[in-house]
Amino acid sequence: MSLLVIGSAAFDSIQTPSGSREKVIGGSGVYAACAASFFTPVRLVSVVGEDWPSAYTDRLRTRAIDLEGLEVRPGARTLAWSGRYFENLNDRETLDIRLNVMGEEYRPLVPESYRGSEFLLLANGSPVCHLDLLDKMAKKPRLTVADTMDFYIQNQPAPLRKLLPRIDGLILNDSEARLLAGEKNTITAARRILEMGPAFVIVKKGENGAFYLSRQAIRLIPAYPSEEVVDPTGAGDSFAGALMGALAASGRSDPESIIAAMARATVVAGYNVEGFSLERLETLTEKEIESRLAAFRTMITF
Amino acid sequence: MSLLVIGSAAFDSIQTPSGSREKVIGGSGVYAACAASFFTPVRLVSVVGEDWPSAYTDRLRTRAIDLEGLEVRPGARTLAWSGRYFENLNDRETLDIRLNVMGEEYRPLVPESYRGSEFLLLANGSPVCHLDLLDKMAKKPRLTVADTMDFYIQNQPAPLRKLLPRIDGLILNDSEARLLAGEKNTITAARRILEMGPAFVIVKKGENGAFYLSRQAIRLIPAYPSEEVVDPTGAGDSFAGALMGALAASGRSDPESIIAAMARATVVAGYNVEGFSLERLETLTEKEIESRLAAFRTMITF
Repeated sequence: MSLLVIGSAAFDSIQTPSGSREKVIGGSGVYAACAASFFTPVRLVSVVGEDWPSAYTDRLRTRAIDLEGLEVRPGARTLAWSGRYFENLNDRETLDIRLNVMGEEYRPLVPESYRGSEFLLLANGSPVCHLDLLDKMAKKPRLTVADTMDFYIQNQPAPLRKLLPRIDGLILNDSEARLLAGEKNTITAARRILEMGPAFVIVKKGENGAFYLSRQAIRLIPAYPSEEVVDPTGAGDSFAGALMGALAASGRSDPESIIAAMARATVVAGYNVEGFSLERLETLTEKEIESRLAAFRTMITF
Repeated sequence: MSLLVIGSAAFDSIQTPSGSREKVIGGSGVYAACAASFFTPVRLVSVVGEDWPSAYTDRLRTRAIDLEGLEVRPGARTLAWSGRYFENLNDRETLDIRLNVMGEEYRPLVPESYRGSEFLLLANGSPVCHLDLLDKMAKKPRLTVADTMDFYIQNQPAPLRKLLPRIDGLILNDSEARLLAGEKNTITAARRILEMGPAFVIVKKGENGAFYLSRQAIRLIPAYPSEEVVDPTGAGDSFAGALMGALAASGRSDPESIIAAMARATVVAGYNVEGFSLERLETLTEKEIESRLAAFRTMITF
């Protein structure tokens, strides 16, 4: 079924222990759409400035991503992020961020043809913007999942709390779940978040995997064991994208389908961090995904 | 098949956010033997002082643990540990430790009837003592696994390096693996440890599960999701004990048997932390283990 992704398109400047890249293609919407595209056709809502190279647009088009919703704003500049990862690759610092065209006043343009999408991923971004997009949909999607992060929990708590009852699932990492819920135990925190509205929560724990929690069920998945982490940028976004891509492909959202989608998301996110920017996703094949998925299943079956 | 466990028997004084206990039964050998006893008959080699209550011995005997190897040293006092867990339950501080009868000069007494044991667990303790026990065995056991910790990595590096080529498997936690190997990536660290001798390494990651690594295979398991952690003491020891108990019961040590044993170890360790000291293990039934094991399998199957 149709998947609509809204998220950022950005210039990333990245330093990791493996090297560095300047102004490479990035952003939550870009990573998520690219990861989802292995499983299902994707529609992307995002915005860039006139400094966005057409070559970057072409790279997304190659992934069969519908770009009718990619707004190019004349006279504006693209969101630019610059960051440095520490030696452990789990922590990073933002060296510079310029929201530019994705500033506070940004509201998404949603093409008519997108408004009936049945699966919707609100990739990491402002809950104000997410609410606005929800209002523009012609009907409630079958499954709406939002990804959020500490910045929005701390700086936009009111819109975020307004968003939570309007989505089916929330994705966030473990420290963010504890922050949002004000709880020390991560599972208890996830349970508290369910009381805020969503039917399920998916908590990402980086190199320690992820879990799914609803009122009825819990599902666990370890991370795919990686020794070759080149650039962690986009790991969470590609996880969310692949998850929703796999769900849209299955047309389902029960716990069994979600854990199956989480396994695929784990594999795709594991590949993503093996290269800078979209480099690894752009060479990745469905056969590689299937092969690692089979290996992953062997690793965890008892 | 027969399982021999060597490890400490101790008085634990514990403070956790849930409460506190004074001089309760504890020690790596006690937890490991108790956890193993759900799966197989266990022989315990340990030492206590004359202050050790016979009621504690009786509690171990109730678990069908062979106590011929439990030395009661006249005129000596039992190892006593006192510690406090922080709010997050992952970190703790040792308030006091008195090695007493388990001091540096301690060498284990190994009954003749134990020396042909086919499965051997060197539960957390001094590698000097582990080497001494290995020398006293009548023949090389089919499977020897040692558990170690940061204290021995830092303070007894030479005996530990001598021990590693003489065991089949090493169990330790993730930060300890990185410390022993001098590597930042946990999987790379485990791979380096394989070069030091053992055929496999099992790395415990607390609430994030564990993994098994050999030259040929890797296996992953998440932790059982716990919200009711009362006392984390003995989590690692009961994991190691249940693991070896399940392996001894199966008589096997291939990766499939080890991941199956790790699942059981995860479940038993998860139960153990629901009460202080041995309280929860002493009421635990095989039916409860089977039931949680089935639930656990459902949680991770995709």
